[in-house]
Amino acid sequence: MKFLRFKDNGAIKSGYIAGDEIVEIENIIDALNGDLKIIESQTYSFKNIEILPPVSPSKIVCVGLNYRDHAAELNMEIPEEPVLFLKPPSSVIGHEDTIVYPEISKQVDYEVELGVVISKKAKNVNASDAWDVIGGYTIVNDVTARDIQRKDGQWTRAKSFDTFCPLGPFIETEMDPHKQKISLRLNGKTKQFSNTSKMIFKVNELVEFISSVMTLLPGDIIATGTPPGVGPMKPGDIVEAEIESIGILRNYVKSQ
Amino acid sequence: MKFLRFKDNGAIKSGYIAGDEIVEIENIIDALNGDLKIIESQTYSFKNIEILPPVSPSKIVCVGLNYRDHAAELNMEIPEEPVLFLKPPSSVIGHEDTIVYPEISKQVDYEVELGVVISKKAKNVNASDAWDVIGGYTIVNDVTARDIQRKDGQWTRAKSFDTFCPLGPFIETEMDPHKQKISLRLNGKTKQFSNTSKMIFKVNELVEFISSVMTLLPGDIIATGTPPGVGPMKPGDIVEAEIESIGILRNYVKSQ
Repeated sequence: MKFLRFKDNGAIKSGYIAGDEIVEIENIIDALNGDLKIIESQTYSFKNIEILPPVSPSKIVCVGLNYRDHAAELNMEIPEEPVLFLKPPSSVIGHEDTIVYPEISKQVDYEVELGVVISKKAKNVNASDAWDVIGGYTIVNDVTARDIQRKDGQWTRAKSFDTFCPLGPFIETEMDPHKQKISLRLNGKTKQFSNTSKMIFKVNELVEFISSVMTLLPGDIIATGTPPGVGPMKPGDIVEAEIESIGILRNYVKSQ
Repeated sequence: MKFLRFKDNGAIKSGYIAGDEIVEIENIIDALNGDLKIIESQTYSFKNIEILPPVSPSKIVCVGLNYRDHAAELNMEIPEEPVLFLKPPSSVIGHEDTIVYPEISKQVDYEVELGVVISKKAKNVNASDAWDVIGGYTIVNDVTARDIQRKDGQWTRAKSFDTFCPLGPFIETEMDPHKQKISLRLNGKTKQFSNTSKMIFKVNELVEFISSVMTLLPGDIIATGTPPGVGPMKPGDIVEAEIESIGILRNYVKSQ
């Protein structure tokens, strides 16, 4: 199933997709944990609503280099352990929202990533049990001011600007996270194209690794790294991040 | 005034200190913005309550090297710009809580820091206007697994373990943030001792710099860097971080 949050006449609502309609439900996290509370009378058309980020994460935990083909492209060794960084909740925007190019940067890059949506509080979870705390999958564009990343050494500032975490449009609950075409198009032209089968650390291994450090909470997002082909955007661009079973996360780029 | 959050018979409450008692108020953030809603009938004794972290930050933005004497100690140049990193909300603990030593680390260090408490939503705030969005000041112990910090290069994992962000005990609203003795004692022995006058980037400059990147929200914390003398703790230790006008943030260390 595909779940989403949306705005209808100013009110924030949750739902799932049924054909070309949205059926309203009470709560996405409960639904991800198998408790689907349908609000019987309510269905919505996509024409009349605005799609919101599917969750409000307390944290977004991101993984550095995690695709074999991306490591090869960069002539880098396969890392022994995931390298982690955080994006702040204030950086999250939704489908069709606008990425704002900060004045201070001359190079803002796209990075399409599979996002793991946590549905249960999780600490010290083994990889074999991780599936139980994963509620579903979404798309993350890990937008990065590459020049600032190089300058700072630490990646946080470069990845933390407001609007630098497009998230959505849907949470898909029934897909194999390691058998998905993953791609990114800039103004219709394919720039990134790979398959999540090339991930170095699998999503359940990432849950084990990260939950050995910090308690994951319902709605938290793990961004699982980007495949080859990252590159710059410019104001006026349209960027589309796509994962086969989830859909397309489309965003616009403008100057500050 | 000194504000705090506390637990009384399982209920979470807010208040300020009046002599040796606590007067209950409705909401700390409102109080920091000048709207002090006193719950008339209620006062509490410190003997009967448990002090909680004074806020629940949506993010904790930390600044690297920010003391002239610490830069000198490390033989490092004064940085041109602050280097930022984030600690996750899941790392926060309160006064008298226990720092848990992860099995994976052989060296967990203390780092006493002045914490700036944001009281209003803030984006692109000038240094001269920053005072209006600062609600007060607290103490942060930026606990760091030094061996993991060295190994990873990126600082996030080393600083993000659960319990690695002791915060509190109080928010002081009437102090000069740049004229404060700041110190840390390990088992009663002074290990860090400096003055916030030695900060390279002042608190209002940090608000300008950080709010040019990300929107700060009420309750967010800026940890303003640590003075010289950082070093390791071991299970069984008692660590006390002190800032002159705020008080003492005491925590215990245990193994996992």
